[in-house]
Amino acid sequence: MHFADSLTRATKEKSPVCVGLDPQLAKLPASLPKTPEGVLAFCKGIVDATKDVAAAVKPQMAYFEVLGWQGMKVFWETCAYAKGQGMVVIADGKRNDIGSTCEAYADAYLSAGSPIDALTVTPFMGSDGINPFIKRCTENEKGIFVQVKNSNPSSGEIQDLPVGDEVVHEHIAQLVESWGMRHLGKETNLSCVGAVVGATYPEEVKYLRTLMPHIPFLIPGYGAQGGGAADVLHGFVPDGTGAIVNAARSIIFASNKDDWREAAKASAEKMAGEIGGALRK
Amino acid sequence: MHFADSLTRATKEKSPVCVGLDPQLAKLPASLPKTPEGVLAFCKGIVDATKDVAAAVKPQMAYFEVLGWQGMKVFWETCAYAKGQGMVVIADGKRNDIGSTCEAYADAYLSAGSPIDALTVTPFMGSDGINPFIKRCTENEKGIFVQVKNSNPSSGEIQDLPVGDEVVHEHIAQLVESWGMRHLGKETNLSCVGAVVGATYPEEVKYLRTLMPHIPFLIPGYGAQGGGAADVLHGFVPDGTGAIVNAARSIIFASNKDDWREAAKASAEKMAGEIGGALRK
Repeated sequence: MHFADSLTRATKEKSPVCVGLDPQLAKLPASLPKTPEGVLAFCKGIVDATKDVAAAVKPQMAYFEVLGWQGMKVFWETCAYAKGQGMVVIADGKRNDIGSTCEAYADAYLSAGSPIDALTVTPFMGSDGINPFIKRCTENEKGIFVQVKNSNPSSGEIQDLPVGDEVVHEHIAQLVESWGMRHLGKETNLSCVGAVVGATYPEEVKYLRTLMPHIPFLIPGYGAQGGGAADVLHGFVPDGTGAIVNAARSIIFASNKDDWREAAKASAEKMAGEIGGALRK
Repeated sequence: MHFADSLTRATKEKSPVCVGLDPQLAKLPASLPKTPEGVLAFCKGIVDATKDVAAAVKPQMAYFEVLGWQGMKVFWETCAYAKGQGMVVIADGKRNDIGSTCEAYADAYLSAGSPIDALTVTPFMGSDGINPFIKRCTENEKGIFVQVKNSNPSSGEIQDLPVGDEVVHEHIAQLVESWGMRHLGKETNLSCVGAVVGATYPEEVKYLRTLMPHIPFLIPGYGAQGGGAADVLHGFVPDGTGAIVNAARSIIFASNKDDWREAAKASAEKMAGEIGGALRK
């Protein structure tokens, strides 16, 4: 099934919550070893605790790469486990390159047998760095989320530079819409090409939705970074689909004591309730 | 020793040639197995063949990541081998993220014991995505190369957008100079913060050198992508240092027969001679 269609089905069935798997060793529950094995046990526990309420998980690759190749082994095991438990798996790697190197990244993460459903990518090198990913998406029913407007304080240093009567990220949004609109799902009319748009910039979320009507949004910055339900509301399309909202710390590190699984589940449920409530208004 | 100082010593002693390790399985010498072990044997052979003429190697991470965690194991083994043979090791990962995630990438590749000397990074998220890398560079005598103007045809879609009376990549160049000029090496007055500037845009190379007088340049695009010695000349600082020029395919795949080592060495020597000749003029 087309990525946007399967993502949308999952968000309708569960919620548009995406659980960010940012397994920082220092923050793992006290009972777990600070090793790759501890990270795997933690990620599996979070998947088990949240799989009924959250549509997706987003493993952040940096926290696996910092553990060397043993960490990458655990990354793949985490992705396979989450996929097996019925979650949409979004690898957050923000990869970018061109030509045959870009093809290698696309093959690494979006090949036919991969447990990963979608990858975050950076548009900095233009369409040469995007088209090889889109090719794999259409061949293998995968997705990408292109960074458009990030949630961090300094994202504007480049993304908000004025270009004529718009700014850089608005220009990129129009590129993303043009890249994506040729590859729409039958059920949703949404593309396999998505966009990363930070919850911490709610005015931009609203305007960017008008620039990218066919583009699924991955909205990070909910919870610990300061974004709330009202901030992400305008990232959805009119029927209340088309967006997935990520929170990491506020869910996965809700407790570091023996109740960490229950605390993670409760936090994900609370977030799903907040967003669901805002969407119903 | 400060990264810019050690890089410059290596380029003076050998040449400013950087050998791009892009080990595409399909292009490996016919005698090698198309496996992670074959990739490792290939990379070690290229290091052995070029270590006396080229200052640095640049392993392209995508070609290792596409082999799964076994590929990442070989990536680390390749970096350690090249470092042990006296080459400067530049990991080409174009990583970018913010906050604790950016710190995790910095710790992954630029920690004190890492065999990697420098990492390529993407400036798209602004200084939040750069400062954690610079912190590790100053602590551990490492370097970064920030993408400023890439060598590919579509790099201008974002990097050449007009911002007032300049373009986006010129604005980024000024950010890079400001990030880098506080962290200069004593021998060279060059920074541990470098820039990626494509050989395929020689006019931009020349102008960007004036905008970034303290910044070492990593210049890709030599050889197979079309750049030549005259195109990279203006990326050097006036004393003929301050830049390293990367070629991958034209060196590592100079032959896929049994003479692949000798052919790689001859290609690197030819390139070193071309650049040296142009610099002496």
